[in-house]
Amino acid sequence: MSYEPRNPSYKEEVANSFSQQAIMKLLGAALTRVEPGIVEITIGYRPDLTQQTDFIHAGVIATIADSACGYAAYSLMAPGSEVLSVEFKVNLLRPAKGNSFTARAEVVKSGKTLTVVNANVTADNEVLVATMLGT
Amino acid sequence: MSYEPRNPSYKEEVANSFSQQAIMKLLGAALTRVEPGIVEITIGYRPDLTQQTDFIHAGVIATIADSACGYAAYSLMAPGSEVLSVEFKVNLLRPAKGNSFTARAEVVKSGKTLTVVNANVTADNEVLVATMLGT
Amino acid sequence: MSYEPRNPSYKEEVANSFSQQAIMKLLGAALTRVEPGIVEITIGYRPDLTQQTDFIHAGVIATIADSACGYAAYSLMAPGSEVLSVEFKVNLLRPAKGNSFTARAEVVKSGKTLTVVNANVTADNEVLVATMLGT
Amino acid sequence: MSYEPRNPSYKEEVANSFSQQAIMKLLGAALTRVEPGIVEITIGYRPDLTQQTDFIHAGVIATIADSACGYAAYSLMAPGSEVLSVEFKVNLLRPAKGNSFTARAEVVKSGKTLTVVNANVTADNEVLVATMLGT
Repeated sequence: MSYEPRNPSYKEEVANSFSQQAIMKLLGAALTRVEPGIVEITIGYRPDLTQQTDFIHAGVIATIADSACGYAAYSLMAPGSEVLSVEFKVNLLRPAKGNSFTARAEVVKSGKTLTVVNANVTADNEVLVATMLGT
Repeated sequence: MSYEPRNPSYKEEVANSFSQQAIMKLLGAALTRVEPGIVEITIGYRPDLTQQTDFIHAGVIATIADSACGYAAYSLMAPGSEVLSVEFKVNLLRPAKGNSFTARAEVVKSGKTLTVVNANVTADNEVLVATMLGT
Repeated sequence: MSYEPRNPSYKEEVANSFSQQAIMKLLGAALTRVEPGIVEITIGYRPDLTQQTDFIHAGVIATIADSACGYAAYSLMAPGSEVLSVEFKVNLLRPAKGNSFTARAEVVKSGKTLTVVNANVTADNEVLVATMLGT
Repeated sequence: MSYEPRNPSYKEEVANSFSQQAIMKLLGAALTRVEPGIVEITIGYRPDLTQQTDFIHAGVIATIADSACGYAAYSLMAPGSEVLSVEFKVNLLRPAKGNSFTARAEVVKSGKTLTVVNANVTADNEVLVATMLGT
């Protein structure tokens, strides 16, 4: 699907808001793509993001996927809107091992008050490690 | 519900495994309760855990809830078992504002290969900010 | 938690709306409890509600749980409101075998536009077969 | 993604099992496509499948989506396997109005004990009314 942005400066506003998410800095996350209804966020492997078996913690994967979903929704909203996650579900398909992890979020349905977004997280741009569906 | 642990040293093993989750150290999370089928993890407010509006990022809430769920399941498993999240869903009920946040996970059903766990996250021990259901 | 209804005739309105859900008639479902924020719906075992192994189909369980959640939310709404499910997640804990199945829904958080409801479905009033979290 | 079936007679076995799901008969559901990892189930509009506002009840949508997911998983399993839903989440994107409704399920990840399946439900083959992610 292709979407028309309602806010001409959506790219700048997504980037500005992203730079204010302190947790993204803590995780070393970068905003790697912003299109209307599509946003990607990438992190590199870091030992301090792992759980007990050296894979990236599922919560970290969920964190970048959730932010990517939020900004994918935000990229289609009218100027001055705010975005807030209502709920999300993550299926953890494979252990998160690799050098980099990219969450790619794409709007499924953009509504008046609610937007539904799907995100896939891949390791090293090829292995699908998690998929999220959020509101 | 009350559960009988199958592993007599479940408390030590949960604590050991928790201390190896590097991400818990990064987030400043503490293991604050371990009973059979019930585990609590607590974090304090820190500016570097926030999203763009100064609340704790939903992903951080999900991270401590997911670890609490995992260890609640682990506390009932036979010695030598491993625990891995298959999927979880989070409903974000209120913005995560407060001084401390506690994820309290409780096993709903303990099965042979799958365990279902519910976690509630409260701010300052009184306001419910999120609820999770995971496998 | 205990809730104060905003609509004095919530009981009648829930019952009226329930009687208009044609699918409830098809499934043989009965509205068995209506309190502020709490609603129960019950079905009996019927061979034509089963999947391939003689248990009640998970979708039937989800159907009564979803209606119970919707009416639990509706019981707390202002007069003239409408209720619509945004999303729900079901964990199927045990095969649905038994003579009767009751979905008990209870509001977790009642908000301005969104209400979060949890439902548990028990077989013969004692065995938990499914748990739902919906918006 | 394209999958290789492990059971040469998967088509017959899916069809046989479907014909034993009594609930599918009650809902008037038809198995309209069976490929390796992809299954479609279709129902027509019927007044006795509706909720209080004349749309098809979300639980009916979930029922055909859940069966489609189960059979998509089953189509890739070894002979003699059994399939059981562990959990599913549905996002209801638009009211289910139309003449026919098709749930198209596609396997996201086929594992040893767990399979993750996504299903989209469209009205009249064009309007997406619901999306499901199940295990």
